[in-house]
Amino acid sequence: MIYPQAFLSEVQQQRQEFPGLTNKVYFNFGGQGTLPRSGLEAIIDAHNVLQQQGPFSFKVNEWITQKTELLRAEIAQELGVEASTITLTENVTSGCNIALWGLDWKKGDRILMTDCEHPGVIAIVKEISQRFAVEIDICPILNTLNEGNPVEVIKEYLKPQTRLLVLSHLLWNTGQVLPLKEISHLCHHYTESDRPILVLADAAQSAGSLALNLTETEVDFYAFTGHKWFCGPAGVGALYIRPEIFDLINPTFIGWRGINIDEKAQPIDFKQDGRKFEIATSAYPQYEGLRAAIAVHNSWANSEQRYQQICKLSEYLWQGLSEISAINCLKKSPPEAGLVSFTVDSGINHITLVKKLENQGFLLRTISDPDCIRACIHYFTLPDEIEQLIKAISSMI
Amino acid sequence: MIYPQAFLSEVQQQRQEFPGLTNKVYFNFGGQGTLPRSGLEAIIDAHNVLQQQGPFSFKVNEWITQKTELLRAEIAQELGVEASTITLTENVTSGCNIALWGLDWKKGDRILMTDCEHPGVIAIVKEISQRFAVEIDICPILNTLNEGNPVEVIKEYLKPQTRLLVLSHLLWNTGQVLPLKEISHLCHHYTESDRPILVLADAAQSAGSLALNLTETEVDFYAFTGHKWFCGPAGVGALYIRPEIFDLINPTFIGWRGINIDEKAQPIDFKQDGRKFEIATSAYPQYEGLRAAIAVHNSWANSEQRYQQICKLSEYLWQGLSEISAINCLKKSPPEAGLVSFTVDSGINHITLVKKLENQGFLLRTISDPDCIRACIHYFTLPDEIEQLIKAISSMI
Repeated sequence: MIYPQAFLSEVQQQRQEFPGLTNKVYFNFGGQGTLPRSGLEAIIDAHNVLQQQGPFSFKVNEWITQKTELLRAEIAQELGVEASTITLTENVTSGCNIALWGLDWKKGDRILMTDCEHPGVIAIVKEISQRFAVEIDICPILNTLNEGNPVEVIKEYLKPQTRLLVLSHLLWNTGQVLPLKEISHLCHHYTESDRPILVLADAAQSAGSLALNLTETEVDFYAFTGHKWFCGPAGVGALYIRPEIFDLINPTFIGWRGINIDEKAQPIDFKQDGRKFEIATSAYPQYEGLRAAIAVHNSWANSEQRYQQICKLSEYLWQGLSEISAINCLKKSPPEAGLVSFTVDSGINHITLVKKLENQGFLLRTISDPDCIRACIHYFTLPDEIEQLIKAISSMI
Repeated sequence: MIYPQAFLSEVQQQRQEFPGLTNKVYFNFGGQGTLPRSGLEAIIDAHNVLQQQGPFSFKVNEWITQKTELLRAEIAQELGVEASTITLTENVTSGCNIALWGLDWKKGDRILMTDCEHPGVIAIVKEISQRFAVEIDICPILNTLNEGNPVEVIKEYLKPQTRLLVLSHLLWNTGQVLPLKEISHLCHHYTESDRPILVLADAAQSAGSLALNLTETEVDFYAFTGHKWFCGPAGVGALYIRPEIFDLINPTFIGWRGINIDEKAQPIDFKQDGRKFEIATSAYPQYEGLRAAIAVHNSWANSEQRYQQICKLSEYLWQGLSEISAINCLKKSPPEAGLVSFTVDSGINHITLVKKLENQGFLLRTISDPDCIRACIHYFTLPDEIEQLIKAISSMI
């Protein structure tokens, strides 16, 4: 095993920013990230500004508008897109709902979805299917983790009636990264259909962990949250919509944030940017928490450097786990991102093991399908923590 | 003018709980309430619990579930209903969206709406109308503020195709309280239709200010927020759905919080209570802020006593304003709740006046239709603040 030295001293300093890292060994960034100290401070400051200058006043309303637009711009910058393409949401799933309910479904239309999607997203697709007599196809991506080509599998399942492909950019169960650019290209140039097939990416695991340039990927919808890999507070997420398809999408859940009104407060039309799909009052202080968290990451390194560090550290864990005979890493080659999923074949139940680990201060989670344990590595994870985890697991199995 | 003495000493003490009241004279509770000190402390405590025990762990997930159910139960108690009827939402408008998109609309169905609804809600109704070829009727309630009977007006506008009535319980522009029980009764027993007409109340202004027993009102949907009259933080609201119609309503925006899954994490069906309409991760620390705010109010008096105090104080303001010749209170009899709307006929523009007042520390807002200024009175507003406001306005017009 090669000990990853790069950035190590700066990592120690960076870790001081995260109170959640001090009393445990944390591997659940894909569930929720550790909020930096400055994130909580920004939240408290925002509450205080609201109480001191409002909470409802011309001054506060201007302040909220200004901070909201700063957040939108900073998120856009992380993704390599224009601020106007970003809709602020409450979470990943809300973003997926906006996309899925925003299309003008006709009976007989088809949605193609991979077999690795999150139950929340599957439930939306099933309800759409029932309400609009839309058909669902499932393509088997799970088996392409170690061999085969996911693009070929998707291609095989596209049909002339397919209108939308729903997939995760980084699969939450196995940690596989799907080649989003190739997939978007495939769907947009599918010749059997009289219209391009749109692509909705569930980016719960990829936003904040991969180095992203969404414009280049040509993805149509990218739904994500700030509270996982970006380490922001729970309750703030966003949806990117490719500007070329903006006019195709109707807003479903609607509110004052998305509309223009006349002098009698009557709605005239929808705003012509990402705000179109925003609803009403949100937990604005949390917006400031997310801004602070993004700033903390960027103060350390840019997203490409952070991603490289994540990959190095994930490989270190993957190697270490691979050397234990009772452990089977799902992926047979080094991880492409921060998720390392593995099974333990020593007879101990995965949930029991994860609970035992939690009691000893190691935080991981189980995944139901495939039945496995998932460890998440962030750029500020320490090689030492990885070694401790490997030791702890070895001692329990 | 009769100076309202009751509860006065306890009010002074209660006001110490609200940092937002110390440096200004606040009349914008209908925009956003002042968060109590204990509310902010509860939010900070929740963030600290998350970081110390998680943020993602078995322990934290149990903690969140437990606190979420406490909030649901405490909100339900404020409204005189069962906890299972409550869906937690992000804001009022989200609750209205759940109701409006949850019905199985057919071409030719009609929605009846009053002429006093919030633009966000109007925009939802217009989009529903366009997507499903549903017709909109508007009934003129505004003119029943001082004479006439809103129930009679609504009755006149019901048609055999009407499926839903959308109205505010407490009108945000004029402060009129609509007789919700009589209106629900009228709609549920409308004999020209082969099915009962449902009633959706926008409760932005009534929840937390009126003394409520929703079961008695027979209202079908009651959508509200915690950040106005309950003085909770922004970003937490709720929707009550009358249990008798629960099965009629489909969830639209969907996520993991509303579904049951099998051992392979595949969605099986929807939860059979208010959680059915909840989506995914929310700003949970804000839930604790709202719980703390509700507790502060109840430590002072129950909702009926608070409402009585609001009415007394509103009457005090209404009387005082009525004595100024250039001021015209929209309502010709004492207010029935905490909203006092008035016009100033001395030539000064309402927005200019409200901005001047804000610069002097008096926080009010303008309303566009009818063009007026709105002052909100809470149970802990001081008669002295009301006198100061009257003096300040007098000096400016």
